[in-house]
Amino acid sequence: MLFDLIIKNANLALTGNALSATELNCHYGASIGVKDGIIIVIWPAEEDIDGSATEVIDATGQWLLPGLVDCHTHLVFAGNRADEFARRARGESYEQIAAAGGGILSTVNATRKASEDELFEASVIRAKALVSQGVTHLEIKSGYGLDWENEAKMLRVAKRISSELNIEISSTYLGAHALPPEYRSNRTGYVDAICTEHIPKIAQLKLAETVDMFCEGIGFSEAECERIIKVAKSLGLKVKAHAEQLSHSGGAALIAKHQGLSADHIEYLSVTDVQAMAKNDVVGVLLPGAFYTLKDTQKPPIKSLRQEGVVLAVATDLNPGSSPIGSLLLVANMAVNQFDLSIEEALWGITLRAAKALGLQDSRGSIAVGKRADLCLWPIDTPEQLIVEIGLHRPTKMWSAGQEIKL
Amino acid sequence: MLFDLIIKNANLALTGNALSATELNCHYGASIGVKDGIIIVIWPAEEDIDGSATEVIDATGQWLLPGLVDCHTHLVFAGNRADEFARRARGESYEQIAAAGGGILSTVNATRKASEDELFEASVIRAKALVSQGVTHLEIKSGYGLDWENEAKMLRVAKRISSELNIEISSTYLGAHALPPEYRSNRTGYVDAICTEHIPKIAQLKLAETVDMFCEGIGFSEAECERIIKVAKSLGLKVKAHAEQLSHSGGAALIAKHQGLSADHIEYLSVTDVQAMAKNDVVGVLLPGAFYTLKDTQKPPIKSLRQEGVVLAVATDLNPGSSPIGSLLLVANMAVNQFDLSIEEALWGITLRAAKALGLQDSRGSIAVGKRADLCLWPIDTPEQLIVEIGLHRPTKMWSAGQEIKL
Repeated sequence: MLFDLIIKNANLALTGNALSATELNCHYGASIGVKDGIIIVIWPAEEDIDGSATEVIDATGQWLLPGLVDCHTHLVFAGNRADEFARRARGESYEQIAAAGGGILSTVNATRKASEDELFEASVIRAKALVSQGVTHLEIKSGYGLDWENEAKMLRVAKRISSELNIEISSTYLGAHALPPEYRSNRTGYVDAICTEHIPKIAQLKLAETVDMFCEGIGFSEAECERIIKVAKSLGLKVKAHAEQLSHSGGAALIAKHQGLSADHIEYLSVTDVQAMAKNDVVGVLLPGAFYTLKDTQKPPIKSLRQEGVVLAVATDLNPGSSPIGSLLLVANMAVNQFDLSIEEALWGITLRAAKALGLQDSRGSIAVGKRADLCLWPIDTPEQLIVEIGLHRPTKMWSAGQEIKL
Repeated sequence: MLFDLIIKNANLALTGNALSATELNCHYGASIGVKDGIIIVIWPAEEDIDGSATEVIDATGQWLLPGLVDCHTHLVFAGNRADEFARRARGESYEQIAAAGGGILSTVNATRKASEDELFEASVIRAKALVSQGVTHLEIKSGYGLDWENEAKMLRVAKRISSELNIEISSTYLGAHALPPEYRSNRTGYVDAICTEHIPKIAQLKLAETVDMFCEGIGFSEAECERIIKVAKSLGLKVKAHAEQLSHSGGAALIAKHQGLSADHIEYLSVTDVQAMAKNDVVGVLLPGAFYTLKDTQKPPIKSLRQEGVVLAVATDLNPGSSPIGSLLLVANMAVNQFDLSIEEALWGITLRAAKALGLQDSRGSIAVGKRADLCLWPIDTPEQLIVEIGLHRPTKMWSAGQEIKL
């Protein structure tokens, strides 16, 4: 058979498609064949390579892993919020800063003011930072526009980043991120706009596949979120939520009730929530970068989540306020250090399990026959080093659907 | 005047030579002239540039900062210790792992086995990771050889890294890092070897400028350290110590007594120690990466150090066991997040104050006339972003003594 790409003499890790894997499923000295962007065959070390290819790469014993998947980012934004950090250093809370018009709304102002080109130029740098450390698929949320024009601008920028970097992006509409200033005294009016104007247009123009919401005291109530979920689902969009980050606000149970993709943050999750998530196959997305930045002390109930079999992913939450962190491997380290994930859970959490948080576990996130050839070659001795050693490793080569990614 | 290099239209930060600066001392739209590797003149925005140059760089409003100084690293080593992290995740302490022959000694074994070329190839990658994020001067310690041949091998590798990357390196002899296995039942014999063989050869061959020691229950006693300090000083070498990291072991007071450069770690520092350090102008080097990795809870007494006027630096402590972190900006962020340093203190702590920890504050670590032109140009809106936003910024250009650094 003639392949487009053969990568030979590689150590493979994170192979197979079992979401409950406890090991890294390594194969030493193996080779893979790729055609039309898909992994067609995996030859173990003891088998001869059966076929030829347009391009043959000798991995010389380096580690071939699935490309990393960052399943929760807000990386399209303008401006920076360095000043807020000084305020937090003086003891103000994230909620106090938000209530005083700082926080998300200061980024909304800057993002609205930026032209589409300016927004792209500022944002693509952050996407490149992630990709340069092995991310081949990332999710990008809107949510700093909060009116139709600017939400659509953000989502078009996300698509442009995808073309520019030759990587795949999952786009998420997050109109219910904060109440825009023009609706300050008319909450219902804004939820109306989301439900009757924005979401229908998102679905029609295919600007995003998923609808997200910030279910929180300083965000949107359970009732408002449920209204949004119902509209989204009726139009064929998937749903997920920022849930139980700063308090127990009911978002996780709501997502479970409506069989959404994931509940993200989940520090204040209850036992009942954990059971509801497990029963409805909702992924728990851990965002330890926000936990670190906000110096939170309430940790997600990892033991209980693990025990009930909830699939756990890890993501950067890359955003200007609560998680200005452009490294998925760093937050994976933080998930081990702060939340006591095992190194294996962290590695699956930024690959296959992160793909599941985007509904893509059947075709992305691991090395297996039939999966999209999103791949990274790492010059390391053992895959655990990627989690343990921070800021020291970069891929020597990366592929998106079998095409080499060049930054 | 004809300069070698003019950098025009830059915003400058971290200018001047005051170790007690509380602001970042910014100058907007300024230009600098460099000759023979030294900053000869700084033109403020309102003054015309008086002279020409072989090379003129238009900074187009980017920020020009002094190159970052990483004043405490152990980056020359072979092997990795990813397995130890699994042991720590199961609840073993750093001291238990060390006592069981893991920890430093497992790196000693790997480093002794590596050829000089192998050691260089493994280590230069880590130095490049630091330099790519703005470090133009770094300190490298020996301490994984523990016999003359291998300590000398490590220090030669450090010099080779300096030539390879065109950056300046401060070399430190750390024979008193751990007791080598061959001296397990003969502590005095090893301290004899350090004092009568190693240090004299270090001084004679100029393989290092400074002698460091691990003053700790699992390292070397106060009496052993004092003997080493006296020999080092008698041969014209400078001294510093790993002090009060895991317990109060007396290292900081000892360094103060002998007017050493710095006491590093200093979590268990007493009030008397703080006063002794202030009185004797000893720099306190904070290593928040080790604090983070070991999940320590005892923090250095920052308020008291600040109040007494102890100069505080921040460094990576880059090493395979307790701080496998290849990013000086990340640990500077950790110093703010974990130890409550201000952003300004963090920025001075990785430049001028880090230079002082190496005895180089008069010629390195800030932008001032007469200083070595170790410089970085950053594409940012405000210097605080370097500390607040992790993993997102890299210099567009860097210079070591006015020569461009190309990685």
